[in-house]
This record gives sequence, C-alpha cells and structure tokens, in this order.
Amino acid sequence: MDLINDSFKKKSIDQLIDFLRIKSISADKSFKNEILKASKWVKNSLDEIGCQITRIYETKGNPIVYGEIKLSSNYPTVLIYGHYDVQPPDPLNLWDSPPFEPVIKTTSIHKEGAIFARGASDDKGQMFSHIKAVELLKINDSLNCNVKFLIEGEEEIGSENLEEFITKNTNLLKNDVILISDTSIESNSKPCITTGLRGLSYMEIELIGPNRDLHSGVYGGAVPNPLNTIVDILSKLHDKDKKISIPGFYDNVKLYSDKERIELKKNSSQDGELFKKDIDIIDYEGEKQYDYDERISIRPSLDINGIWGGYQGEGAKTVIPSKAYAKVSMRLVPNQDWNRISDLFKNYIKSITPKNTLVNIKTHHGGLPYISDTSSKEYKAAYMAYKDAYGIAPFSKKEGASIPIVPIIEKLLKSKVILMGFGLNSDSIHSPNEHYGIFNFFKGIETICNFYKYLPKS
Amino acid sequence: MDLINDSFKKKSIDQLIDFLRIKSISADKSFKNEILKASKWVKNSLDEIGCQITRIYETKGNPIVYGEIKLSSNYPTVLIYGHYDVQPPDPLNLWDSPPFEPVIKTTSIHKEGAIFARGASDDKGQMFSHIKAVELLKINDSLNCNVKFLIEGEEEIGSENLEEFITKNTNLLKNDVILISDTSIESNSKPCITTGLRGLSYMEIELIGPNRDLHSGVYGGAVPNPLNTIVDILSKLHDKDKKISIPGFYDNVKLYSDKERIELKKNSSQDGELFKKDIDIIDYEGEKQYDYDERISIRPSLDINGIWGGYQGEGAKTVIPSKAYAKVSMRLVPNQDWNRISDLFKNYIKSITPKNTLVNIKTHHGGLPYISDTSSKEYKAAYMAYKDAYGIAPFSKKEGASIPIVPIIEKLLKSKVILMGFGLNSDSIHSPNEHYGIFNFFKGIETICNFYKYLPKS
Repeated sequence: MDLINDSFKKKSIDQLIDFLRIKSISADKSFKNEILKASKWVKNSLDEIGCQITRIYETKGNPIVYGEIKLSSNYPTVLIYGHYDVQPPDPLNLWDSPPFEPVIKTTSIHKEGAIFARGASDDKGQMFSHIKAVELLKINDSLNCNVKFLIEGEEEIGSENLEEFITKNTNLLKNDVILISDTSIESNSKPCITTGLRGLSYMEIELIGPNRDLHSGVYGGAVPNPLNTIVDILSKLHDKDKKISIPGFYDNVKLYSDKERIELKKNSSQDGELFKKDIDIIDYEGEKQYDYDERISIRPSLDINGIWGGYQGEGAKTVIPSKAYAKVSMRLVPNQDWNRISDLFKNYIKSITPKNTLVNIKTHHGGLPYISDTSSKEYKAAYMAYKDAYGIAPFSKKEGASIPIVPIIEKLLKSKVILMGFGLNSDSIHSPNEHYGIFNFFKGIETICNFYKYLPKS
Repeated sequence: MDLINDSFKKKSIDQLIDFLRIKSISADKSFKNEILKASKWVKNSLDEIGCQITRIYETKGNPIVYGEIKLSSNYPTVLIYGHYDVQPPDPLNLWDSPPFEPVIKTTSIHKEGAIFARGASDDKGQMFSHIKAVELLKINDSLNCNVKFLIEGEEEIGSENLEEFITKNTNLLKNDVILISDTSIESNSKPCITTGLRGLSYMEIELIGPNRDLHSGVYGGAVPNPLNTIVDILSKLHDKDKKISIPGFYDNVKLYSDKERIELKKNSSQDGELFKKDIDIIDYEGEKQYDYDERISIRPSLDINGIWGGYQGEGAKTVIPSKAYAKVSMRLVPNQDWNRISDLFKNYIKSITPKNTLVNIKTHHGGLPYISDTSSKEYKAAYMAYKDAYGIAPFSKKEGASIPIVPIIEKLLKSKVILMGFGLNSDSIHSPNEHYGIFNFFKGIETICNFYKYLPKS
C-alpha cells in the first residue's frame, strides 16, 4: 500500500503513543478520569479523520464513543467495534519500562521494533488501525463503504453496559458486517482469522473464619483457618486427571469426532515446541485425552486468577487471618451457558465449604462461547484481504480467549462479526511488558484497507 | 501496693503511650530507624530508674539493650528478658484507630480501659511493667535483688542474633532466675503461669510456572498455573481428619496417657463456649481425638499464614500468573525438633510439586518446644506473687504460642525461666486493634513486686 509512507507511519506511531499514555484502566474505579480522557481522545481522532457524526454516549459505567461516515445508502455499512480501556498493569515491578510511558524497542520477533505499553496490542493499537485505515482510504479517495465506529470502555470488565446501549440503538448501529480487531495471528508469516472464541465465567470467593486475625500459636490447631480452607476448596475444582470437578460442568460441551479433531489440527498446526519455549515451561498441563492446542480451543478450562489472604510482606508473621479470597475464571466452549456454569460453580463451592466457615461467592461477569460463520461473502473478503497483505492465505483458528460481546452483538444487530486480529500471542497482553509490533500495526492497516477493497458493494 | 498511686499510674501510662508511638516493626527492614529509636527509648528508661550500667549492643540485625542494677553480691540476680520490636500492623484497614497512635478505650472486659496500639500487650506493655516494678521497689527502698535487663529487637522475627549475643556474654548475663512477661493469663479473675510453649517452624514457598504472566484465555487449560498448583500442594498438608500429612511429622510427638490428659484438663479448665464466642466461630477445627484446648497446647499444628499470587485488585483480571507464594508455619510440641521438621516439610513439598513447576522453599526461623520446671523455689515465689496480687492461686498452663528463645536461654545461661504473663488472649496480639488492659498493666507491676518480695535471698 503505497500510501503507508514514512510520514504517515511517523504520525500514526506518534498518535498511538499519545493514546497509550492514557491510563484507562477500567477494573480500578480510581482511574475514572483517565477513562474519560481516553474516550475524548477517541472522539477527537474520529473527528480528525472526518466522521460526520461523533458522539460520546454516557452509560451507567464508562462512556461509549460513536462515530459515523455515511457516503451513500447504496454502499454497504461496516461497523467497527473496539475498546479504549485496558487491563490493570500490575505487577508493576515486572515491567522493564513504565506501562504508561510507551517506548519502542526491537525484539527477536520484532526486528522493526515494537511499542511497549499497557494496551499497545489489547486493544488500543489494533482498534486504532481501523481509524487509520479509514483515514488512508479517505485520503486516497477510495473509501466506498459507510463506516460506523462503536468504541467502548468496559471490555476488560465484561462490557457491562454495552448490551443495553446496543439494544437501545439498533437503528443507529445497523450494518452489514462487524469488524473486530482484538485477537491474534499465529505469526507474522502465518496469518489467521479467529473463527471461534471461548466463553467466560469469572467468579470471586470470600471465606470468613474467625471474626478477627488471630495469633497462630495461641489458636493454631483448634480453629478454622480460612487460608487452610480455601486451598482445600480450590484444590477440589480439578480432579487428578485435570478434569474440572464441578458436577454438571461438562454436560453441554460440544464434542468433536476423531475425524473432526484431525481436520481442526490440520487447519491450525501450531508449533508446540515453540509454544513451550516461548513461555519457558517444561511440560504442558491439562486434560490428557487432548493435545495442548485442543485444550486451549475446543475444551473448557478453569484457572485461579488471583488468591490472597494473611501476611504477604517481608519476613514472618504468625497469623491466622479472618478472611481469604480467590478470583477464579472458567473458559467455556459451545454449548456451555455461562449463567448456568456460574450457578453450578456457586452451588459446588457452597457444598464443599465446611460449616464452620462463611462463604460469599460473586459473579464478576461472563460471556457465551462463539463460532464464526465462514461461508459469508464478508468472510471471503477478509480472507482475500489477509492473503493479499501477507502473501499467504490465512487459516481459520479457534481461539482460547473470550470476547463476550461478540455473540451478543451478532444477536442484537443481526449481522456477522469477523475477527480480524493482527496481534501475536507473544505480545504479553494482560501481562507485564505488553507490546505491539510496528510491522503488525501497519500490516493491520493494510489488511483492513484490502478488506474494504474486496467487500462486494451490493 | 500502696505506691501504685494515681500520679505513678498517670506517669507510667504516659510513658507507655510514648513508647507505643514508635513503629518498631522488625519484619520490615524499612522501619530500621524506628527500631533504633525504640532501643534508645528502652535504654533511656533504664537510665531513668537508676541502672548503674546501660548499654546498646549492636548485632548483625537489631540492637540489644542491656541494663544492670547491682546491689550486693550476696543478693540473688534476676534477669529480665523482653522485646521492644512489634509485629507488622497490617491489615491496616481493620484497625479502629491507627496502630501507632495509642488511645485508651473501655471494653466489655476492660471497664478501667485498655491502651489500643500495636505492641501494647506484645511486648512493650508487659516488658515495661518490669522496668516500672523495679523503679517502684527502688523508690520504696525495698529492692533486695540484683537486676539485669536483656531487651531485644528481633523477637517477632525469630531472635536471629540473640543466641550469638548470649553465647558471647554468659558472664555478663549470669543470673539465678530469668523472668519473661510475654504470655497471657486465663482471665483477670483467673491468673495462670505458662509452663509449656510450643515450638515453631516457619516456612515460605515460591512456585514458578510460566516465565511471565499469561492471558488465561489464550493459555488456560494447557499450561501449569502456579495458583492451581499451590492450592493443590497446600491442600495436601492435612488429611481428611485434619492430621498433618508430612511423613514423619508425628514421629517424636510426646503422647499423654488418658490419666495425664484428665489431669491437665482439670488444671486448666478453660471455657470452650467463651473461646468460640470470643472469636465468633460456629465450630472448632482440628484433630478429632483431642479437645480444642489440647489441640492448642499438647498437639502440634500447621497453618498457612499468608498466600498470594495473581490479581488481587478490584474487578476482574484474566491472568495466569508466573508465580505463587505461601507462608506456612508449624507449631511443635515436645519432643519435635524444628530443624528436622523444616527438612521434612521441604522434602514433602518437593515430592508433591509437579515436574512442570519450579519450587523454592525457605526456612524463615524456628524454635524448640518447652516445658517449665515447676519445682524450683523461684517458681514457688512466682506462684505466691500471683496469689497475693490476684487473691487466687494461679494454675499452670500449657500455651500454644512459641517463644523460641526460652529453651535456648535456659540452656546457655544454665538457669530457669519463669513465664510471668499478664496479658489476655483477647488482647488481639498479632491482630488489628491490639490492646492491653490498664488493670493488667498495674496488676502485672504489683505481681512482679511481690515476686521480688517472695524470692528467697540466699
């Protein structure tokens, strides 16, 4: 794409870096001002590329930014969904540079450099690619679609207010196809389109034992220690074979025949040794009957995401704490329903909590699993867009992560989502040192421009 | 004791409050200056009561304060041991008033009021009683003993440098009896002398899975999550009957005959319902074959004192952390050796950690269990001192907590320790809202004065 020249690149990177400086952490309400700042930043950038309508919609939570370019009612309408909020950056001490002071560094994968900052890949960098692609097409006078932008600020906390907004604004958001760039490709020489997502159920457990922290010498051995209890409870979430022990958990899990499993594998063919080496583990863990790549795509999982209680400081404190906490999430696959799974989780935890301990269980949020329609003309346009940009046809990939809004948005707006991701698994999203390759950023913009080119106009 | 008049009381409380303002937290090295301040405070107060020798001895860790009053070589010499360091005050949010801003409030137990502050009971208040008792006897011209003070600043972190100091200064510390006030009585109307202490082994576990924090959607189900692993490992430290599962753990545990158990019980006769009500638990936990009061005196125990890893903030973060941590301590009884127990713990944890996870295990500190000599004339003097002060004979109590230095100090100095405690279990030592009753403070001073009176002079 000739228009992606040096001056365009420099400006785009400067803009993204500016965007990445905003600490738009949705999980922590003390960053509310930064959230508002980020929403304004997005609105301004939509104004700058010439959207005829731009607006910040207030919600009960964080605002939703909307933008629209309407060229002709004969043209198809593309809806871009993305998010300006980011994950919390902790643990801060593991970042090589501050998470909200973006720096460009080369890595073994990114010879052209990558931007290191929280949100670089998830999702500020990927979302901004769409704004820049549309700008480029407009400059080139080759935009021949109507475009709508729907950019929210609560994706990392379960898109709590988006569903209501979409439900109330189905006319405003009416479209022919929805593009989302919030997923990854296999590698920069092996692109793919994500055609499956796992669902999610995210829970939090609070255990309460004695009414106050106790001295472990004076009381140890005779009283319920909520830390002893919580490890007992959490250890009962998996059996010895790493199957999830919650009764009924697997009831609706879609099973694949051996033939289907071979077909899926052929289509994906990830490099398992590279996978292990990248994260430096001696061996995988999980269900023995399934390969590692199946465990993170067609099989559900359960992970403790956080645990805390008692003394965490330097040295020793001989305490039996009053309370213990854990955050636990489950990744779900077709045809598991996250509300049902959350209830099963609650009932099971309650059933295994001893009577001398009080338990409170909270559902943070959840989402349904998802499978794409790969037969549509829009999907074919995306396929051709990748093929042209990368010089190699993309494969179809079932992804382990969740974007709970995807199945909801399809249902509410009665159009299909295409998950045009450009990140890499090694981007460390949700981790310290998140980054997004300069190559990925501009290859993404190029691919999006191609999509508009291939999208049938009637 | 007539001399404990209002003006003495006012001055003593003011002094103690001043002492309690010092944040002498030994577990956190960033409080080193406060530690030094506390050591100087103790030295000054020893100077003030007229010690002929006072000195601050530097160690590799926190300084040791020494003071001496020598009246006659014909008199017996009493050595007072205590500590000026305190436990960390967290969780801070559970304190009703700041831990280092002492306030006096009445409670249902303390109608005369209690001083609320970290260290009020453990051990600043109790230790300071000895200084005030000696001052009182001197004013009254009735001190007929030599007195030595040995006040350290590392009791809460295992008295790391005290053993070496004592070993090098056996002549300086030579004495006929050692008094320690760092334990509790049953209630203010039911005094006791602690004649047994449990030992301690305090360990820390670090688990390392992937080389960085991972997205739990992208990786969940195929990789070793150190949080899933740590709960599995820790849950294997107890069996279903709440026995400790570490092989060899019970090998040397002193067993009591049915007759001995009945005798011990008769001697103690704690109120189990009051015990439960005070800490608001529905039921005890622990070894079924033993009553709750046996579980915290003649039986060993194992408690997780802290656990952490992953996301602990508000809301949800879908992370598989790279690392997980736990602090675990075991209370030991005669004739368990803490070094052996620490090794058994390490070996067991290593044996149950899966191969795909790296484990590091550290011994923080430990101590041997202890049983007092109750046949000595010094013990009898203490017995009479309580009986006179409280108007009721003290019973002999086996305590669940540990003071690792007690068996060491007896061995090194070849004299006997008497544990003359004046606190209550409800003082919330090591917990938020620690306090020490005004009644307890002055009744302690009175009892100590009585001790000097009853101690045979030849």
